[in-house]
Amino acid sequence: MKTVYVTRRERFNAAHQMWNFDWSDSKNAEVFGKCSNKNWHGHNYELFVTVKGEPNPQTGYCVDLKKVSVVINKHVIDYLDHRNINLEVPFMKDKLASTENLTIAIWEQLEEEIKKIGTQLHKVKLCETENNFVEYFGEE
Amino acid sequence: MKTVYVTRRERFNAAHQMWNFDWSDSKNAEVFGKCSNKNWHGHNYELFVTVKGEPNPQTGYCVDLKKVSVVINKHVIDYLDHRNINLEVPFMKDKLASTENLTIAIWEQLEEEIKKIGTQLHKVKLCETENNFVEYFGEE
Amino acid sequence: MKTVYVTRRERFNAAHQMWNFDWSDSKNAEVFGKCSNKNWHGHNYELFVTVKGEPNPQTGYCVDLKKVSVVINKHVIDYLDHRNINLEVPFMKDKLASTENLTIAIWEQLEEEIKKIGTQLHKVKLCETENNFVEYFGEE
Amino acid sequence: MKTVYVTRRERFNAAHQMWNFDWSDSKNAEVFGKCSNKNWHGHNYELFVTVKGEPNPQTGYCVDLKKVSVVINKHVIDYLDHRNINLEVPFMKDKLASTENLTIAIWEQLEEEIKKIGTQLHKVKLCETENNFVEYFGEE
Amino acid sequence: MKTVYVTRRERFNAAHQMWNFDWSDSKNAEVFGKCSNKNWHGHNYELFVTVKGEPNPQTGYCVDLKKVSVVINKHVIDYLDHRNINLEVPFMKDKLASTENLTIAIWEQLEEEIKKIGTQLHKVKLCETENNFVEYFGEE
Amino acid sequence: MKTVYVTRRERFNAAHQMWNFDWSDSKNAEVFGKCSNKNWHGHNYELFVTVKGEPNPQTGYCVDLKKVSVVINKHVIDYLDHRNINLEVPFMKDKLASTENLTIAIWEQLEEEIKKIGTQLHKVKLCETENNFVEYFGEE
Repeated sequence: MKTVYVTRRERFNAAHQMWNFDWSDSKNAEVFGKCSNKNWHGHNYELFVTVKGEPNPQTGYCVDLKKVSVVINKHVIDYLDHRNINLEVPFMKDKLASTENLTIAIWEQLEEEIKKIGTQLHKVKLCETENNFVEYFGEE
Repeated sequence: MKTVYVTRRERFNAAHQMWNFDWSDSKNAEVFGKCSNKNWHGHNYELFVTVKGEPNPQTGYCVDLKKVSVVINKHVIDYLDHRNINLEVPFMKDKLASTENLTIAIWEQLEEEIKKIGTQLHKVKLCETENNFVEYFGEE
Repeated sequence: MKTVYVTRRERFNAAHQMWNFDWSDSKNAEVFGKCSNKNWHGHNYELFVTVKGEPNPQTGYCVDLKKVSVVINKHVIDYLDHRNINLEVPFMKDKLASTENLTIAIWEQLEEEIKKIGTQLHKVKLCETENNFVEYFGEE
Repeated sequence: MKTVYVTRRERFNAAHQMWNFDWSDSKNAEVFGKCSNKNWHGHNYELFVTVKGEPNPQTGYCVDLKKVSVVINKHVIDYLDHRNINLEVPFMKDKLASTENLTIAIWEQLEEEIKKIGTQLHKVKLCETENNFVEYFGEE
Repeated sequence: MKTVYVTRRERFNAAHQMWNFDWSDSKNAEVFGKCSNKNWHGHNYELFVTVKGEPNPQTGYCVDLKKVSVVINKHVIDYLDHRNINLEVPFMKDKLASTENLTIAIWEQLEEEIKKIGTQLHKVKLCETENNFVEYFGEE
Repeated sequence: MKTVYVTRRERFNAAHQMWNFDWSDSKNAEVFGKCSNKNWHGHNYELFVTVKGEPNPQTGYCVDLKKVSVVINKHVIDYLDHRNINLEVPFMKDKLASTENLTIAIWEQLEEEIKKIGTQLHKVKLCETENNFVEYFGEE
């Protein structure tokens, strides 16, 4: 039984801001700097979703990546692409729109759906810029 | 007299939307699709600024790229980074926030300032995503 | 009238071989080396299609890149993706399957179709590997 | 004793098809889609081979990466580059030519050979496209 | 308690040579090849620093990456950028200037400083070229 | 007669410094900043060599890129890779080791040699970092 890790990349473009509503404007500006701009800014996010399992002897696939792509698009990308993360994304409601929180929320969107196509979610990696990215393995 | 073309890359993250105020909501939605989202979306823009000239025999440089970087940051990046292109950028006021218009506006911001540091603007290239980019050579 | 150059990237994966049917096997092996393998090899091709024109004052676009993408997919990618360039691509019939010939053939597939969506083809760039690419501007 | 993980990238271009000979043509088409094209398609594969060990106090190297490169080329790249994975690669005989199976087969080609140059194979990562890749750590 | 891994990329350009002073010139040439050039050569190094922790409910951040960047610049980049690794870098004194040793030394420079900003160092990854990189997780 | 532009990428790693021997140390430091470090620094240079011509009807090639690669390696890379640009490269003797001067010198190394393999040099592009590059088309 040979376990492989298979990764699919998807992309989305979204607006967000960093803002804590329990804080004053000046505290938000101090902590979040230009990321707290009330008029929003945005990013080209790159999302890497990794599943683990054994290759199926009938297909050679751990899972059909086309199905993984469909799941990611239906449960993640369609909610986020060309959207405002703070205002429009149900699974980010009442959460700070950090890459950390977004990565965890994407894991939670995907974990059960990935099971339904017969494989297991291993990692979600989300790149905000070429210099910053976050990974989550479902550790609690 | 040997003419070289020297390019400096800078980056900025911004929010925008595609919207024509002369049009109905449905016309905007029809033409601009998801880019017309009223709650904004955003991008990691990559900007490539090319100047042309001959290497100075004293320095080997066509122009000191540190000076080019200072000019780009002062006249372009500081206006755009972590900003809303539609709402906050003086040189994009009353213009549709397309990559085409933004590329031309960046040329206009830079052309005279690049002359002041002793060289000549040749090209502005602006990448909105890994799949889409615009170039402008100052042609009128 | 400000002319901008707008580029759209598309990708396809295809098999090919380099073979001149007027030559002996040994001549083919001598000239084309491992690219002449009779059992085929393949590439992830990256295609960059550049059009030129002025931004439309109503849209800010030189042309809607979604339309450019549709044209490229219909007239180029659908013929090439997951195909054998030597055996299955009508516009490469009886041509050597070099990146040079493929780049010119893609230009010829696109030139009239790009006109129909109201803009002008400027350049086709085709990358075969990270080390090799070809550009064609329609020069004859 | 400080353990580092050292990675070498190599590349190859190959043709393949996804096909299960126990299935009908229509079943193959249904499961594998355009990847089942009988006339083949191909990819630019990127291979990342990671070894683990401690830096040698005499050289500062965990292992000389030139030697790792020689091993990878001799036991993997020379069999795969400009080849048909289904028809010509002994270590893929009678296996479905999926990236999963190919990644595992490359591990098996390398594991003992990497030991012979005094280090330990840790991971094989194989990228089929910019959107899809597989990793294998030898887990059974 | 959800643990995320957050990575910051920084870059530096440096000169180095591979040389063991206990060895003859010919032994150095034999083992290190062109990397032993007495007149130095150099690289654009890419450094990826990964910290681990839980997102802070007040900020959504595991740690403010601007602070991570400041720490990396103060304790690593300022010592290495536009420097000679063999001659000028205190934390590489009397060590062979391999990527392995440099990666471990960067870990040692950062481990305590990362704690001081309230998070935990998880990995240092250092890329010497597009084909070679080293990772260190602090394993001893 | 259809003219295509064909590009080959090669890479080299080298050390250099920016220094004008007619100037004082302080003037060098003022103009060249950290690039004037007397102990050298270095880069991973990426070189893109573009030739122009028509595809040969017998081969489909403008020119065999393997031959272009041999020419670039023999007349450029072998002089520069793992070398000190200021001290060891004959065609950079008595020149400031700027990317501009190096790009022009590479053109001069290649122009006649490219003719000998039956094609014409069109452009030399040299990337010093991901943010800085120079292009030369032989303009005088």
